[in-house]
Amino acid sequence: MNIEGRRYRTIWLKEPENRVVQIINQQALPFKFEILDLRTVEDVCKAIKEMYVRGAGLIGAAAAFGMYLAAFNDEMASAARLLKNTRPTASNLAWAVDRMTAAGYSGSLEQKIEKARIEAQAIADEDAEHCRQIGLHGLEIIKKIALGKKGEPVRVLTHCNAGWLAFVDYGSALSPVYAAYDEGINVKVWVDETRPRNQGAFLTAWELGKHGVGYDIISDNAGGHLMQHGLVDMVITGADRVTRQGDAANKIGTYLKALAAKENNVPFYIALPSSTFDFAMRDGLKEIPIEERDASEVTRIAGKTTEGKIETVQLCPDAATARNWGFDVTPARYISGLITERGICRADEKEILSLYPEHNKYGG
Amino acid sequence: MNIEGRRYRTIWLKEPENRVVQIINQQALPFKFEILDLRTVEDVCKAIKEMYVRGAGLIGAAAAFGMYLAAFNDEMASAARLLKNTRPTASNLAWAVDRMTAAGYSGSLEQKIEKARIEAQAIADEDAEHCRQIGLHGLEIIKKIALGKKGEPVRVLTHCNAGWLAFVDYGSALSPVYAAYDEGINVKVWVDETRPRNQGAFLTAWELGKHGVGYDIISDNAGGHLMQHGLVDMVITGADRVTRQGDAANKIGTYLKALAAKENNVPFYIALPSSTFDFAMRDGLKEIPIEERDASEVTRIAGKTTEGKIETVQLCPDAATARNWGFDVTPARYISGLITERGICRADEKEILSLYPEHNKYGG
Repeated sequence: MNIEGRRYRTIWLKEPENRVVQIINQQALPFKFEILDLRTVEDVCKAIKEMYVRGAGLIGAAAAFGMYLAAFNDEMASAARLLKNTRPTASNLAWAVDRMTAAGYSGSLEQKIEKARIEAQAIADEDAEHCRQIGLHGLEIIKKIALGKKGEPVRVLTHCNAGWLAFVDYGSALSPVYAAYDEGINVKVWVDETRPRNQGAFLTAWELGKHGVGYDIISDNAGGHLMQHGLVDMVITGADRVTRQGDAANKIGTYLKALAAKENNVPFYIALPSSTFDFAMRDGLKEIPIEERDASEVTRIAGKTTEGKIETVQLCPDAATARNWGFDVTPARYISGLITERGICRADEKEILSLYPEHNKYGG
Repeated sequence: MNIEGRRYRTIWLKEPENRVVQIINQQALPFKFEILDLRTVEDVCKAIKEMYVRGAGLIGAAAAFGMYLAAFNDEMASAARLLKNTRPTASNLAWAVDRMTAAGYSGSLEQKIEKARIEAQAIADEDAEHCRQIGLHGLEIIKKIALGKKGEPVRVLTHCNAGWLAFVDYGSALSPVYAAYDEGINVKVWVDETRPRNQGAFLTAWELGKHGVGYDIISDNAGGHLMQHGLVDMVITGADRVTRQGDAANKIGTYLKALAAKENNVPFYIALPSSTFDFAMRDGLKEIPIEERDASEVTRIAGKTTEGKIETVQLCPDAATARNWGFDVTPARYISGLITERGICRADEKEILSLYPEHNKYGG
């Protein structure tokens, strides 16, 4: 998508040598726009772990490019292990690593490297294309709502960042919003700040603003109140892993918004490319591993001082303790529909498998 | 309650002259313990508006002492208007001002001042005593839960700060927790940080720590996940206003926790002294005014730097916009019970009025 009129993806190979992976450093946003060079699989692991790159699709693409970098040293097997250990919840990560492993390498080292490059680039390109398709499908929902609004804004609430920064391009949850905006539909986004890492206030606000979409940041606590008072027309979030029965792991707090949406008859959609499905899992609450991250993400936060310096401040008493789970699981029954690159379906096994019949084999 | 072994209330008259109201400056907590002097009703209005004092009961007591300070200039009528305009949602504020107005003043200015002092002190003393009683009633619930826990901690989730800092002493939501702790019951608190003003991370964590009660701060997004996984035994929050049918306005985000509690069969209690009831209102969603506060509370936050300086940092892009409602309303049907100084009742009009029969007159 566009930044100051120039088109970017979140990750790419630096041409013409294709020896360096370049990323937008999302840790520096929204205060500084910075491109980082990743030269080794260790660089990629660090970028994933430290969240220079984050988001379901982008983690997958980064892992794929990490495998490509490992191919130069013929170390793809060990790289696969390193990459899979970076973060446990996102389905795309293991999916991309496994796809890179399964690509079938033969011939000289150079031929293997070229094969890995083609496969990683294909994963990235597919991610972008899937997200673009998600946008077109989701657009139809927004169009229908807009019909009833007579020019008043369609108000979409989203949690965390599932925009183009979370993927290679376009995004999942925000792709329909961009598609609607680009068609001239009056659309406005309620941006949950998304504590503790504030991906909403930092990233979603930034990318919506750069594209020109109107938004307001709200505290994570506010969504229920807005829905009670009819101020939300639909909720769209992304997901980090969705099971074959439609349970969705996403950024912690998503479940609370889904409950409020259900109670207040607000449509609640999860947007995801097929790489986010985990067809080997059924019961999301029991089976999806939930990452617990460092407590310091809760007790401290970095922001910009009035002098323009980035400073980390402590948000609690000196002796305070905290816990920090990164995700929660929204059971399928709270989800109005899944917006995928193949179309929209209800969050149940039958409908999901009718869109993805090739995954029937895991059924039981 | 105790701070470093010394007993404090949140507000008191400076003896022996009783000409100055002293408060703990809650804006400075948890980083600095500071006592402020309030000498005029304007000082009190500022303290309420700027949240040097906050919390349902404490706002009421502060307003009462503000009326007392106004009595020195025989300006109680204009003071009543000033005080009522400081913050719109808390029921105790208008209640305390009206009670001060209705106290019946006669005789010399000195006699009126003395009458105002006695009434304000009575409001403060009753607030403390009501909160102590709430603790004893709530203790019975915690005791019952503890029976089934075989020494494992009873895990109470709370939102915002309804501890002793929110009242004159003891607190509402935390009073049962302190009572349980003081009886040797193993009790642990999940402290919602409570964005945007972080009263949980700043105040609840501070006062629990000072008293010795174990706790962990969590992001406001985490409570649903904890309840889904059986990690919360009960929720207790305070309230800023509760209608005669039991709808409860409290810090924004309370409603989301109530929804999650209901869905996961976790008991959800609201603790409140009688001064928080608004018997003139019935439908909380329609009738309770919800304060919208400055967007800067969402876009900026103050914390302590590694050098120990208090610094305000910006948490969003420069051009970002935000909205900031202070409260939401939890409809009575999500509330397991109301813990009042007169006992525990269900959140419905009949049960509430059986505890408060003197308010039957407003019924219709």
